[in-house]
Amino acid sequence: MARNTAVAADAHAPPVTAALARFVATHGSRGWSDAVDHEAQRTFFNWLGSAIGAARHESVNAALGAVQMLQPAPQASVLGRSERVDMASAALINGIASHTFDFDDTHLKTIIHPAGPVASAVLALAEHQHLSGRAVLDALVLGVDVACRVGNAVYPDHYDRGWHITGSTGMLGAAAGCARLLQLNEPQTTMALGIAASQPVGLREQFGTMTKPFHPGAAARAGLTAALLAKHGFTASARALEAPRGLMQTYSVKCDWREITDQLGERFEISFNTYKPFACGIVVHPSIDACIQLRAQGVKPDDIERIELKVHALVLELTGKKEPVDGLSAKFSVYHGCAAGLIFGRAGEGEYADAVVNRPDMAALRRKVVATVDDAIAEESADVTAVLRDGQRVHVFVEHAIGSLQRPMSDADLQAKFTHLVQPVLGQARIGPLVNACARIDAIADIASLVALARD
Amino acid sequence: MARNTAVAADAHAPPVTAALARFVATHGSRGWSDAVDHEAQRTFFNWLGSAIGAARHESVNAALGAVQMLQPAPQASVLGRSERVDMASAALINGIASHTFDFDDTHLKTIIHPAGPVASAVLALAEHQHLSGRAVLDALVLGVDVACRVGNAVYPDHYDRGWHITGSTGMLGAAAGCARLLQLNEPQTTMALGIAASQPVGLREQFGTMTKPFHPGAAARAGLTAALLAKHGFTASARALEAPRGLMQTYSVKCDWREITDQLGERFEISFNTYKPFACGIVVHPSIDACIQLRAQGVKPDDIERIELKVHALVLELTGKKEPVDGLSAKFSVYHGCAAGLIFGRAGEGEYADAVVNRPDMAALRRKVVATVDDAIAEESADVTAVLRDGQRVHVFVEHAIGSLQRPMSDADLQAKFTHLVQPVLGQARIGPLVNACARIDAIADIASLVALARD
Repeated sequence: MARNTAVAADAHAPPVTAALARFVATHGSRGWSDAVDHEAQRTFFNWLGSAIGAARHESVNAALGAVQMLQPAPQASVLGRSERVDMASAALINGIASHTFDFDDTHLKTIIHPAGPVASAVLALAEHQHLSGRAVLDALVLGVDVACRVGNAVYPDHYDRGWHITGSTGMLGAAAGCARLLQLNEPQTTMALGIAASQPVGLREQFGTMTKPFHPGAAARAGLTAALLAKHGFTASARALEAPRGLMQTYSVKCDWREITDQLGERFEISFNTYKPFACGIVVHPSIDACIQLRAQGVKPDDIERIELKVHALVLELTGKKEPVDGLSAKFSVYHGCAAGLIFGRAGEGEYADAVVNRPDMAALRRKVVATVDDAIAEESADVTAVLRDGQRVHVFVEHAIGSLQRPMSDADLQAKFTHLVQPVLGQARIGPLVNACARIDAIADIASLVALARD
Repeated sequence: MARNTAVAADAHAPPVTAALARFVATHGSRGWSDAVDHEAQRTFFNWLGSAIGAARHESVNAALGAVQMLQPAPQASVLGRSERVDMASAALINGIASHTFDFDDTHLKTIIHPAGPVASAVLALAEHQHLSGRAVLDALVLGVDVACRVGNAVYPDHYDRGWHITGSTGMLGAAAGCARLLQLNEPQTTMALGIAASQPVGLREQFGTMTKPFHPGAAARAGLTAALLAKHGFTASARALEAPRGLMQTYSVKCDWREITDQLGERFEISFNTYKPFACGIVVHPSIDACIQLRAQGVKPDDIERIELKVHALVLELTGKKEPVDGLSAKFSVYHGCAAGLIFGRAGEGEYADAVVNRPDMAALRRKVVATVDDAIAEESADVTAVLRDGQRVHVFVEHAIGSLQRPMSDADLQAKFTHLVQPVLGQARIGPLVNACARIDAIADIASLVALARD
């Protein structure tokens, strides 16, 4: 007996690698509704702000230090900084930066943060090759579709077993976007996806370390490199995604092939992208939102005896750190998120500064939060009751947090968030021109002109 | 219920990431027997010949074309060629080249080809930094130990489910070797292994395409990059290998932690490395060996009615291509291997040339091979009977093929193989000086002087 018959393999999976390649190589430019295109602009804008905002973070400094040991050619920009590096390294570093604050976008159905791997790869390549803003948006829509459709097919099993799905599907999206920019034909695009399939990046164990944001960065680099290899005739399996020993059956028991092909070219996953109002993992957002509402209802930290928080099991599994010691670990603490909401009425990157995390009043309030798992509560909801010293109970139930599909961030919200992120790095004077360039990205002949506004 | 309780997780796994890091960072130089050190030399020598031999293969041309789009700095050499590229790209390309002919080394217990990822990363870094031959051998022994011990812990489940284990453990070996060369301390080495853990490379579905040799190359690049990142303060989980959502529990059901820590620093996995006499997957070797023996016994192709081949199931699973169309696909055809053994009495890279694969006599003889799975036959054995037109039956049973641990290649065998590979690329005059440099590698003050002999 062959040993591997122990693993149930589906030898008759449909040719989804080739189907995605055909879609990426042949779908018309802007071949979708205005609403989809507007969402692509919002995705790009939110990602750009997130990357610039973290440009001077120590994780970016460390990554840039390592990359500089390779003496990279100045092909593409590190966003928010003055350095220029080769395209692949720019994809890596901008991908790291964009996810460093955990403040980027989320495809809620899969918890993929799709712009990190896709936009980082696409922009680096497009800047170097002086491609248009239209080409960038097209590549972004198509790349996000590829990553999220594969994610839809394997989620949740794939994620549950330990993969950080953003990086373990993102390299496919990055490869797709770059293949599109390079105008690879259908067979070449199949190879690009195939080469990328061998390079999933990311483990959930890394959450709370710099290697978490490394995942979208490394996925961006892997996808960009895969497209360059395919352009030069490098070969891979044309069934690299679906074959019995291909990526999807290797790293997931669940493989719902229809998620990849159903309404391909008609329904676009970027339509379901959302943007974070809070600088932390999406599962914490309903709890923060509820605490901000408690604050708006007059609940003051000093009056609080305890906070009774009922959440879905995943919230405590992912963000159950009771005593975070710094900003990075606080991202994985629903307790910290609640305290920030109650004390500040917000949870931007500033509320995740080390100094704020270590404030005695924050530590004290975090300890007053009693979190329990309630099977009746969905992942996107939270039930919070403030029990005050005088015995009074103030209750808030959030079904869908601000930033969700049901309560999306408005364009004005996104612009305020962008300003909050970019102003400390590039200064106020740069905000206006950069916001304007992003708003008219569709008409930009050379995307390098936009990137020039996003450099220090 | 948390969804991921469906996956059995061992929260009490021992701290093997830290144990490996301590070993790599603190084990003494040449802290092993002469026999181990000699095996390291043999491993390096065999790898170098394999990489030089494939230097002009189209897979290397394609990879170099892609890398040159990044305008790499001339830091390190592409073996067997004149180009120089940055260290990470050299690791990638030399790793691809060394595995292109499927003619490299094999750690038989795991089917890992350890030198591809480890030596490719180590040599690129050491050349650029002008480190000694001694430092290279030390890094090779330690890096191979890390990759193969993790492999021992997860094999066979990990491999069975579809991972190409050379690239999915090799990035750890490459990170370990590079961490050693960079003289990272114990915590930094833990981080290097942690960063590498998020980047397994390789799917068995890619066998027969250029992406198979891409796996050790990309693993080399990933490991080298991980060490550079760790040197600059980049962080990862210190339990990235063993945590419930760490690499090993995420990608393998079998996790035998003792394989990592038992006799660490006393038993060295490089002792169990073997070198291929035939330019194809190791599982085909007993069959080829048997056919060469049939030929030596006077069996002539024209007299053959059929060849009855009994093998382990894995042989047909991995190399069951009946009608290979070119050299690359012939690597995965036990039928082709048998025909080469019977017609040529050898199966070097020359016997896998496209023109040879498509020779009518080869095609005819391949079709005469009737292969069946026999549960009684081990992976390392083959039972072959030539049934001749006159009814005569000639039987050969190979328990262990030439090149196995039981029947190792001699130093002279390795030198003949090296010459066979290197002569067509660098010419006869270069063989002697290069062989001599490899023989005295332990005494070389600057490994770049050896690499200079291996360039075109």
